[in-house]
Amino acid sequence: MIKVAVLGYGTVGSGVLEVFQKNQEILNQNVGEEIELKYVLDRKKFPGDPVERYLIHDFETIVNDPEIKIVVEVMGGLNPSFDFVKRCLENQKSVCTSNKELVAQHGTDLLLTAKEHHVNFLFEASCGGGIPIIRPLYQSLTADRIDEVSGILNGTTNYILSKMTSDGYGFEEVLKRAQDKGYAERDPQADVEGYDACRKIAILSSLAFGNYIDYKDIYTEGITDITATDIKYAKAAGAVIKLLAIGRRTDQGAYALVCPVMIDASNSLYSVNSVFNAVSVHGNMIGDAMFYGKGAGKRPTASAVVADVVEAAKNPGTTVMGDGWNAKKLELMPLDDIPGRFFVRIQGNIAACLPSVESVFGEVDPITVPSIDREFGFFTGEMTEAQYKEKTERLEGIIHMIRVRF
Amino acid sequence: MIKVAVLGYGTVGSGVLEVFQKNQEILNQNVGEEIELKYVLDRKKFPGDPVERYLIHDFETIVNDPEIKIVVEVMGGLNPSFDFVKRCLENQKSVCTSNKELVAQHGTDLLLTAKEHHVNFLFEASCGGGIPIIRPLYQSLTADRIDEVSGILNGTTNYILSKMTSDGYGFEEVLKRAQDKGYAERDPQADVEGYDACRKIAILSSLAFGNYIDYKDIYTEGITDITATDIKYAKAAGAVIKLLAIGRRTDQGAYALVCPVMIDASNSLYSVNSVFNAVSVHGNMIGDAMFYGKGAGKRPTASAVVADVVEAAKNPGTTVMGDGWNAKKLELMPLDDIPGRFFVRIQGNIAACLPSVESVFGEVDPITVPSIDREFGFFTGEMTEAQYKEKTERLEGIIHMIRVRF
Repeated sequence: MIKVAVLGYGTVGSGVLEVFQKNQEILNQNVGEEIELKYVLDRKKFPGDPVERYLIHDFETIVNDPEIKIVVEVMGGLNPSFDFVKRCLENQKSVCTSNKELVAQHGTDLLLTAKEHHVNFLFEASCGGGIPIIRPLYQSLTADRIDEVSGILNGTTNYILSKMTSDGYGFEEVLKRAQDKGYAERDPQADVEGYDACRKIAILSSLAFGNYIDYKDIYTEGITDITATDIKYAKAAGAVIKLLAIGRRTDQGAYALVCPVMIDASNSLYSVNSVFNAVSVHGNMIGDAMFYGKGAGKRPTASAVVADVVEAAKNPGTTVMGDGWNAKKLELMPLDDIPGRFFVRIQGNIAACLPSVESVFGEVDPITVPSIDREFGFFTGEMTEAQYKEKTERLEGIIHMIRVRF
Repeated sequence: MIKVAVLGYGTVGSGVLEVFQKNQEILNQNVGEEIELKYVLDRKKFPGDPVERYLIHDFETIVNDPEIKIVVEVMGGLNPSFDFVKRCLENQKSVCTSNKELVAQHGTDLLLTAKEHHVNFLFEASCGGGIPIIRPLYQSLTADRIDEVSGILNGTTNYILSKMTSDGYGFEEVLKRAQDKGYAERDPQADVEGYDACRKIAILSSLAFGNYIDYKDIYTEGITDITATDIKYAKAAGAVIKLLAIGRRTDQGAYALVCPVMIDASNSLYSVNSVFNAVSVHGNMIGDAMFYGKGAGKRPTASAVVADVVEAAKNPGTTVMGDGWNAKKLELMPLDDIPGRFFVRIQGNIAACLPSVESVFGEVDPITVPSIDREFGFFTGEMTEAQYKEKTERLEGIIHMIRVRF
């Protein structure tokens, strides 16, 4: 009999309880022995709730109970999560978490602690709730050198951009609707500014490339500047705008960034819409593989964290993820050195402005949208961010730039 | 030091050698110790080929060499593969295979043999070469009750249907082009008749539902009857036709089938085109998750089979897949009892024929295609296959029926 404790009875915590109640038999089968919820820790009381028989208010009960072999951390935040998780690992309890801040900030430390104490620190649910991606990275794509991990890692922004594309509304209006529907937080900054996706791509890239990547080193730009007009240009070019998180290593070095990107139908992420998330992985042998699912939500996230519980339960005494990643930090290339193409909108009419654009960028095909006057757009060729910046210093009338991947 | 032998130096076998040569260091890192290719078995000689230093012609050398801990079977077919694989397992050697016939026909026996001898029988590469799906099924989706596994599991037929859709050609013409490009075999029967997809869905459903499913019980219909006209109707209805393989369990029982199906854009498989394959899994907690990649090809298949080698190497003495599936056969519902909707094409003009159609199927919305005269199509409501058959016995002029999922 393996006993489990859950830290936190919020949305995900209640989903974990639901998984245990609905799928108890399946869990026992998959573990190969009985596995049972013993405690749920929360400061609040929940009179009449099914959690009552498990509810406790003192963390010490959990950390001092030798019966507890696995602890699920779904409180979020860093304090007291970090302290609680660290103490659990030091007390020979495996920890499974959905907390991306915790993993991005303290993952290296916690992976080492887990290894030292021969237990597991697992975090499938931290990067795209219901998309199995962490385990495939360390257990399925093991014959490849992974060159790139990229993805749509935030459901709120993907919902907003999908709605802007399908309905033609502006950012503010769609955000308001998303908040009304509960798809966006009242304080949406972590999502719309890309901070959430940034932490997730830091975790995924660290695993894929084998060295710790500091999320604070990753250039991050959100979607608040994307307008209905930008979306119209994307449509005219046969493309869509997505908030992509990209981690890539090349012969010149590794880089990572989070920003809105125009992609076309040849990209497998093109048709990932609404609250769905997807992660695309490129390996030198497998080529492109993609993993797709609901990136958030109570049940998908709970499913992922309980699958980690099953993995920990099946592997007592073994650290299944090995080192996870090396504690030696991977230095990322500066933004200036990252190569790419750019879509640029220019104020003014084509006849008057195209010569100066072409004197800077060479020959381009101007793009116009019937309903939009006195401006046009164009795609640059491949160049570094620094080269792009240098060129734009010599050009007037730039309204907006969006990065391009095709 | 772990030593590996490969049975068969065909396309996949040469890919396995390439993975070992290109990614040797990554393999050592992921296993946690050195892993080395020792033998490649083939009847032929390959003068001047990099395989020469590994090449042997006698299987007994492998099975009797105690240094060999893992054997890769990539010969295909059942004879002598089955005998070789069984003897390897009985001699405490783990086996990793890409051979779907072998797994569909003898998987239950070989899983049991592996478990008895505390070794692994792994077959990630047997179902959609480069799509990590087998391992996610038994290691990531372990907190869910899986209700359905469905997918596009054959690259040749998906290429043909995608080309028919994009270019408007008929089946025979596209098949010929696919053969010229090497995307289809000279004898394409196993692909175009659905036999290949049938074996793969038998394996995936057995794993997902936990009991052995006999591929011979699965209703299988290929794409040879799909015409350019069918594709035009699908387009008119905002749909595409895909060869789907479906395994599903409901309160009424489990069923599986392989057949051309019309799906619309709400289905995550809708935009899986060309030689790409995808598997969609529905669990009671995670909802829909999808796995996407190249279903075949030398490198993706080799990547998958070598990832199994890494898994076997990391877990000596443990059967990571457990039972895999139970030897007790899962009885499938007869085709007659399977529910669904149907798209039906009727000979004749609407005014004359619609009344008799509606007298049998109730009110329907007829669909016409501008360039096609003297016929029309319609979608039925939900009914069982038997009910559909019974109704069509009362109706004349049916040209073609295609199953529908939306």
